[in-house]
Amino acid sequence: MANLDEIVQDIADEMRRRTDRGEVASYIPELARVDPNAFGIAVIDADGNVVAAGDSDTPFSIQSISKVFTLTLALGKAGDRLWRKVGREPSGSAFNSIVQLEHERGIPRNPFINAGAIAVTDSILSGHQPREALGEILRFMQFLSDDPTITIDRAVAASEQRTGFRNAALANYMKSFGVLDNPVEYTLGVYFHHCAIAMTCKQLAAAGRFLAHSGLNPATGSLVVHPERAKRINAIMLTCGHYDGSGEFAYRVGLPGKSGVGGGILAIAPGKASIAVWSPGLDAAGNSHLGRVALEALTKRMGWSIFGV
Amino acid sequence: MANLDEIVQDIADEMRRRTDRGEVASYIPELARVDPNAFGIAVIDADGNVVAAGDSDTPFSIQSISKVFTLTLALGKAGDRLWRKVGREPSGSAFNSIVQLEHERGIPRNPFINAGAIAVTDSILSGHQPREALGEILRFMQFLSDDPTITIDRAVAASEQRTGFRNAALANYMKSFGVLDNPVEYTLGVYFHHCAIAMTCKQLAAAGRFLAHSGLNPATGSLVVHPERAKRINAIMLTCGHYDGSGEFAYRVGLPGKSGVGGGILAIAPGKASIAVWSPGLDAAGNSHLGRVALEALTKRMGWSIFGV
Amino acid sequence: MANLDEIVQDIADEMRRRTDRGEVASYIPELARVDPNAFGIAVIDADGNVVAAGDSDTPFSIQSISKVFTLTLALGKAGDRLWRKVGREPSGSAFNSIVQLEHERGIPRNPFINAGAIAVTDSILSGHQPREALGEILRFMQFLSDDPTITIDRAVAASEQRTGFRNAALANYMKSFGVLDNPVEYTLGVYFHHCAIAMTCKQLAAAGRFLAHSGLNPATGSLVVHPERAKRINAIMLTCGHYDGSGEFAYRVGLPGKSGVGGGILAIAPGKASIAVWSPGLDAAGNSHLGRVALEALTKRMGWSIFGV
Amino acid sequence: MANLDEIVQDIADEMRRRTDRGEVASYIPELARVDPNAFGIAVIDADGNVVAAGDSDTPFSIQSISKVFTLTLALGKAGDRLWRKVGREPSGSAFNSIVQLEHERGIPRNPFINAGAIAVTDSILSGHQPREALGEILRFMQFLSDDPTITIDRAVAASEQRTGFRNAALANYMKSFGVLDNPVEYTLGVYFHHCAIAMTCKQLAAAGRFLAHSGLNPATGSLVVHPERAKRINAIMLTCGHYDGSGEFAYRVGLPGKSGVGGGILAIAPGKASIAVWSPGLDAAGNSHLGRVALEALTKRMGWSIFGV
Repeated sequence: MANLDEIVQDIADEMRRRTDRGEVASYIPELARVDPNAFGIAVIDADGNVVAAGDSDTPFSIQSISKVFTLTLALGKAGDRLWRKVGREPSGSAFNSIVQLEHERGIPRNPFINAGAIAVTDSILSGHQPREALGEILRFMQFLSDDPTITIDRAVAASEQRTGFRNAALANYMKSFGVLDNPVEYTLGVYFHHCAIAMTCKQLAAAGRFLAHSGLNPATGSLVVHPERAKRINAIMLTCGHYDGSGEFAYRVGLPGKSGVGGGILAIAPGKASIAVWSPGLDAAGNSHLGRVALEALTKRMGWSIFGV
Repeated sequence: MANLDEIVQDIADEMRRRTDRGEVASYIPELARVDPNAFGIAVIDADGNVVAAGDSDTPFSIQSISKVFTLTLALGKAGDRLWRKVGREPSGSAFNSIVQLEHERGIPRNPFINAGAIAVTDSILSGHQPREALGEILRFMQFLSDDPTITIDRAVAASEQRTGFRNAALANYMKSFGVLDNPVEYTLGVYFHHCAIAMTCKQLAAAGRFLAHSGLNPATGSLVVHPERAKRINAIMLTCGHYDGSGEFAYRVGLPGKSGVGGGILAIAPGKASIAVWSPGLDAAGNSHLGRVALEALTKRMGWSIFGV
Repeated sequence: MANLDEIVQDIADEMRRRTDRGEVASYIPELARVDPNAFGIAVIDADGNVVAAGDSDTPFSIQSISKVFTLTLALGKAGDRLWRKVGREPSGSAFNSIVQLEHERGIPRNPFINAGAIAVTDSILSGHQPREALGEILRFMQFLSDDPTITIDRAVAASEQRTGFRNAALANYMKSFGVLDNPVEYTLGVYFHHCAIAMTCKQLAAAGRFLAHSGLNPATGSLVVHPERAKRINAIMLTCGHYDGSGEFAYRVGLPGKSGVGGGILAIAPGKASIAVWSPGLDAAGNSHLGRVALEALTKRMGWSIFGV
Repeated sequence: MANLDEIVQDIADEMRRRTDRGEVASYIPELARVDPNAFGIAVIDADGNVVAAGDSDTPFSIQSISKVFTLTLALGKAGDRLWRKVGREPSGSAFNSIVQLEHERGIPRNPFINAGAIAVTDSILSGHQPREALGEILRFMQFLSDDPTITIDRAVAASEQRTGFRNAALANYMKSFGVLDNPVEYTLGVYFHHCAIAMTCKQLAAAGRFLAHSGLNPATGSLVVHPERAKRINAIMLTCGHYDGSGEFAYRVGLPGKSGVGGGILAIAPGKASIAVWSPGLDAAGNSHLGRVALEALTKRMGWSIFGV
C-alpha cells in the first residue's frame, strides 16, 4: 500500500504547486464563493484501504456527479424502460446544449448531459411529491457511502433555482415533446436539489465503490446493482461522463468518470479502486482542470487504465 | 482453450441461424455484391492461439477499420502534431456529416469519422506521391499481420472513387480551411484505396494484436508503438470507433472496437485478445449488426468487458 | 369598385368549393375546435371601401398576427433600442425553433418568430404589471381598428398557458442569456393573452390600414407611426411574416403579410389596400393554406404585387 | 430629371468622402487587387434616361449578381421543373454554408446562395459542353445589356478555380444526393466563369431593366420573360438576394436587389428604375457596405421603396 500512499501524496503536493487552475464556475452564484485553491483526493482500493490527501474531508457541491447515482436509482426503478426517454450516445456538444433536443424530438442523447439528467430525475419522481423523491435520492447517497450525515446544501439549491433558466428551458422543451411526465417545476426542483448534495472526497469515493466491484459495495456487503448493470453504467461514464471533453478524459485518464461543475470528479478503476478528486477550477468543457490532471498522473503511475497497462 | 473454442463455435452457429441481418451497404456499388449471409469470426488470445469459425478465411473490404492503422502510422510519423488537424471527441453525428466541420472551422472531431480519417491520410501523404503513401500503408498492414499476401481490391477502390462525392465534399471543405496540405485528389485517392484493403478475419485479428498487448505484436516480437500510445488508440476506438453508435457499442460490448461498412469489426480486449468479426449487414448507424451481436455474446461469456467482470 | 367586389366574391366562392384545406392547428387544444370550413375575407381600399365576403364577421384567434401590432407598439416605446434584443433577418427555420437561439447567444432572429415576439412583449412590459401591459396592447388594437368591442378570448389564452411548454422553453432560454428583463411568467402571460385576441376579418383589415398608408390610419386620421417606420414594418413582414414559408408567400402573393396559427393572414398592399383573410387549415409551414391561395388570386387579378404589375 | 441627376451626384460625392468602406473580399486572390476606394452608380429610369456618377464605366467582377441572370435563363429552359432542385426560402445562414444542405438532403434553400446557384448552373448545362453553356450565358448578358463587348475576366475565373474548395465541397455534396446531373468539374467550371463576368455599372443597370418593367426590356423591345416571372424573380431577390443580410437590405433599402462579393449590387424599383452600384468593401454578411448605404439614400430621397412612400 506504501506505493499508492506515496503516489497520492505526490500528486496532491504537485497539484498544490500548480498555477494552472482553470476557472471556478460562476453561473451558479453560490458556487463562485468556493476557494479556488482547494484540492482534495481520496482513493479506496479493492481491500477497502482509504488513501487520501489534501482537502479530502471538505464537503463540496457534487453537482453533476449526482447524475451517476440518480441514473443508478432510476434504472433500479424503471429498468430498461428508462431508455425510452433518454439515449446512450455521446452528444458532441456542450452540457447544456438544446440544439440536439430539437433535432431528435426532445429525447436527450444521454443521462449525463443536463437534459438527460432532468429526464432521469423525472423518471424517479414518477408521480410522487418532490420531497419524497428527494428524500429517496438523499437516502440512497447515504446508503452508498454508509454515512447518514450527507446533506443537501440548500443555499446552493436555492441559488440554482433562482438562476437556472437554461435548465428550465431544457425541461420545458422536453415537456413540449411529452418526454417529462411530472410538472416541470417539480422535476426541476428535485434536480436542482440533488445537484446540490454536498460530499467530501472520502464520502464520494465510498459511494462509488459498487461501480468498481461489479455492483457490490464491499464496505457494506450490499449488492447495489446487478454486475451487468454496473459495467454498463461505467460504459456510459466513459463515453459521456465529461460532456464534450469525454474523449479527452478517456484518452488521457483511461477510466470511466463523471465530473461536476463544483470541481469534483468520480473515477472508477474496475476491480481496483474508486477515486474522488476535487479542484474547483474548470476547463473550457466545464470539467475540473486539476482534477483531470491528477487522475491522469494517478492512472499512469498505478497502471490503472482500462485500455492497457 | 476448450472454453473459448466452444464459445466461438456456439456464437458462429447462432449467427448463422439468425435472420436479423441488417442491410448490406449499397452506397459503394461494388460492396453491394457481397453475400449477405457471410459470417466470420477470429479470436487470437494472449498466448497466440487462433480460434476461428465461419467465413474466417474469406477476404472482405475492411473499409473504415483501416483508419485504426492509418492513425497508428500517422502518429508514428507526425506525433502529437497530428492533433492540430483532428480532434479526439465523439462527434454526436453520422460518419459522413459535414455540419460539425462548418461549426468547428474544418477540424474534424476525431480520426474515425470520414473527415478525420481523410485528414489523417493527408498527414501520411505529406508531400509524397499517392502511390508511395499507399505502398507504405499496405506494407504496414502486411507487417502487422505478418502476411505479405494482403492486397487492395482495386475494383472496390475504383467504385468508391467514381461515387465518393460525399467524401470529396468533406475533403474540399477541409481544404478550404487549410486543414489538408496535399491536392484533394491525391489525398482522396490514397483514402479510397486504403479503405479498399481486403483482409480475412484471421488476418485482421493478427493485425490488431499490438493494441491488445501494450503496443507489442507477440507474433513478431515487434514493438509497433509505445505502450502509452496503444492505450490511447484504444481509448479513441472506444469513444469514437462506431460513429454515432459508439455509446451503444461501449454499453453492450464493452471493448474498444472499430467497424467498417464492409461489415467487419476489430475489437480489442486489452491483455487478453484481438478479435475480428465479419457480417455484411449493417444497422442504422452503419455498423455490422450481427458483428456487434456476436461480440456482445463473446465478451459476456468470456468476461472480457473493460468495464468490469 | 364593382371590379374589386366581384373579384372578392369570386374568390370567396372558389375557396368555399375547394377541398384542399390543410390541417387545423391542434397544438393549442382550444384552437382545434374551430370550424375547418370557415372562410372569410375583408379588403379595405384606399378610399375606405370595405369589400368583404364569407365569414368576415366571425371573430377568430389572431394569434401571431398580433406580433405586427406588438412590434409597432414596442418600437413606439423603445425605438431602435428594441433591435438590441431582436434581429431583422429571416430565420431559415420553423416558428418555434430554438436552435438559432443557441447559435446566436439568445438573440432571436426577428420579431415574428415566437422567440422574437416574446422578446418584443418583454420590451412592452418593461417593469409594468402584466395586466397593465395587456390592457395597453388591447387598447392599441381597439384604437387601430376603431372598435372598442375587441376582446381577448380567455379560454384560448388559458389553453395555451397550460400547454405552451415550447414557448416557455424559448423564454427561459432567452432569460438565461439576459435577453428578457421581466420574470418569465409575466412575459409569457402577456404573450399568450395578446395572441388570444379575437378579431373578425373586417376588424383586422381596419387595424392594418396604417401600414398601407404610410403610417396614417385614414379612418381616424391618426398618424400611428412615422412613414419610414410603416415601410420598415412592411419590409419585416415581407421577409419574416410567414416563418419558413416567407419566401413562398413573397413569391406567390407578392405582398407584406403576417399569418397566425388561427388561420388568419393580414396582408398590406402599400398605397392600395389592407386585406384580412381567414381559413383555419394550415400548410406544412404553419400558415393558412386557403388564405394564401386566396391572396395569390386577389393580387394577381388586382395587379397588387409590390414586385411589378 | 434634374432631381434624380442631382441626387445621384450627391450620393456619389458623399460616398467618396466616407471612410467606412468595409473589407475587400480576399478569398478570391484576384479580387483582392481591386481599388478599395472605387465607387460607381448608374440608374436607368422608366424613360431610359441613364444617370450615372463615379466609376460607372469601370468594369468590375459581377460575381453573384450573375445568379439573377442564370436563374432567369434556367427558368426559361427548365420552367418550374427547376424548383425540384432548389428552394425559394431565405437560408438564415451564410452564403457558403453547407449545414442546410445536410439537413435538407442536398436541396439548396434558394438560387442565390452559392449551392443554389451551382444547382441552377447545372440545370443550364444539362448535358451540353461547359464551353457551350458558358457561351449561352455570356450571350444572354450581352443581349440583356445590348452590349456585345461584355466579357469574362479569365484571370478571376482561374483564380477562383484554383481556390474555390468550398464551392467544390458544395457541388460534390449536392452531387452525392443526386441533385447535380453533370460532372462536378463541368458545373463548377461554368459557375466560376459566369461569376467572373466583368461589367460596368451602366451595363449592369441596362441588363436589369427587364426586371423593372414586367419582363420587357424597353431599350430593345424584347420581352425577356413573362411579367409574372419578372415579379417572382424580384420576390426572390428581395427575400434572398443578400444572403444573411437580406432582411437588413429589405428593411433599409426596400427594393429587390442582388449583391456580389466583387462589391456590386443590382437593385430594381419596379416600374421606375434599374440601378447598379459598385463599391468593393464588404460588410460582415458579404455585401457591399457603401453600395447598400448609397441605395438606402437613393430610395429614401426618391421615394422608391416597394413598401410605401
